Amino acid sequence: MDGQQIPDETIDRLFSYLRPLMCLRREGTDTVLSRDLARLCSVAPTVLRKDFSYLGRLGTRGVGYNVDELIRGIRRKLRFDDETRVALVGVGNIGRALLEQSRFELEGFRIVFAFDNDKEKIGRTMGKVVIDDAAMLEEKLRAESIQVAILAVPEASAPAVARLLASAGVKSILSFAPCGMAMPEGVKMTCVDLSLTMARLVYRSCIEDEQNVGERKGE
Amino acid sequence: MDGQQIPDETIDRLFSYLRPLMCLRREGTDTVLSRDLARLCSVAPTVLRKDFSYLGRLGTRGVGYNVDELIRGIRRKLRFDDETRVALVGVGNIGRALLEQSRFELEGFRIVFAFDNDKEKIGRTMGKVVIDDAAMLEEKLRAESIQVAILAVPEASAPAVARLLASAGVKSILSFAPCGMAMPEGVKMTCVDLSLTMARLVYRSCIEDEQNVGERKGE
Repeated sequence: MDGQQIPDETIDRLFSYLRPLMCLRREGTDTVLSRDLARLCSVAPTVLRKDFSYLGRLGTRGVGYNVDELIRGIRRKLRFDDETRVALVGVGNIGRALLEQSRFELEGFRIVFAFDNDKEKIGRTMGKVVIDDAAMLEEKLRAESIQVAILAVPEASAPAVARLLASAGVKSILSFAPCGMAMPEGVKMTCVDLSLTMARLVYRSCIEDEQNVGERKGE
Repeated sequence: MDGQQIPDETIDRLFSYLRPLMCLRREGTDTVLSRDLARLCSVAPTVLRKDFSYLGRLGTRGVGYNVDELIRGIRRKLRFDDETRVALVGVGNIGRALLEQSRFELEGFRIVFAFDNDKEKIGRTMGKVVIDDAAMLEEKLRAESIQVAILAVPEASAPAVARLLASAGVKSILSFAPCGMAMPEGVKMTCVDLSLTMARLVYRSCIEDEQNVGERKGE
């Protein structure tokens, strides 16, 4: 432990600062003022500075923060500084997109195993990985102490595969199956739920439209 | 407007109740008690009942809520009751997965247009949609008043396509490109950021492990 308990909201915001910071770095920006970064991240500058105070001594008054140093400091605090090895189960369109990194950029993660039960796929190389037989899953993950997995199998088989992953020692599962399922204690699962993500987005647009109409009516 | 302002946290929770409710319905459950649903959704029963009070008269004491009625009530409140027509831009692995619904189930949304600039893909049918030339995007979306789009193009072309979508009248964009980009006023964008989603998941597992170790040491 670091001797200092970081509030959950700070942790959430630290994650959300990472993407804009990485964009800045990609654009060649070396240093950034807290007020500029705060605007980019849609938070108040005081909130941002308070959050960064949990990272130790960073930044110089009037000069700003070194972007690279900030990214490293945040990632260290978020246990996101080493590359994490990941197993993928299910090599359909989504699985292939992950392996070929054609769309999904998995920064900080490396897929070291991919499993499928389709005999046509087993033994083929995709991206940098040879597809393994799903029957070997438990044995291989245990041998390499893999703790993180991506579940990209059809919804009907997802619960059984999730239980298998749990018993193979996996602690964190990112699932593309939309339905919630009970997990053994000590295993965390997050679902990529595109319908609900879109529905939230559309709702926000609707509400804003209604408010604009309301304001215009009220003029 | 419904005459009643719903707090943002209630809106968030109403969205999060939908998936467990749909699971119940799929499993053939007709009615559910608030305490059982609350446990399934990891909220306090009082919170859940308060949230549902915004939906009008629903549920019977001792009998519980009708699952189907509850789903319809929530979706109506969340402007998620009609099927929303969506345009897809970019038919790579992700786009194909969306069109073929092989992994992503887009409940409540229907992809009515798909665009790509690859001559090999234009004119081909995927799922129920014929791939259109990306050069036709603005004209087609305007003609059909499409307001929601999914952006599944390579990261480098994402900003230009997003601007094109905005000028075609699109209000909500779900993007698979990880980098933030400035949007014109009135356009909302949500990014599917798998690396950060996984990093948050792994962080929660790490912290729990550390706390367990801490507790064991403290015994």
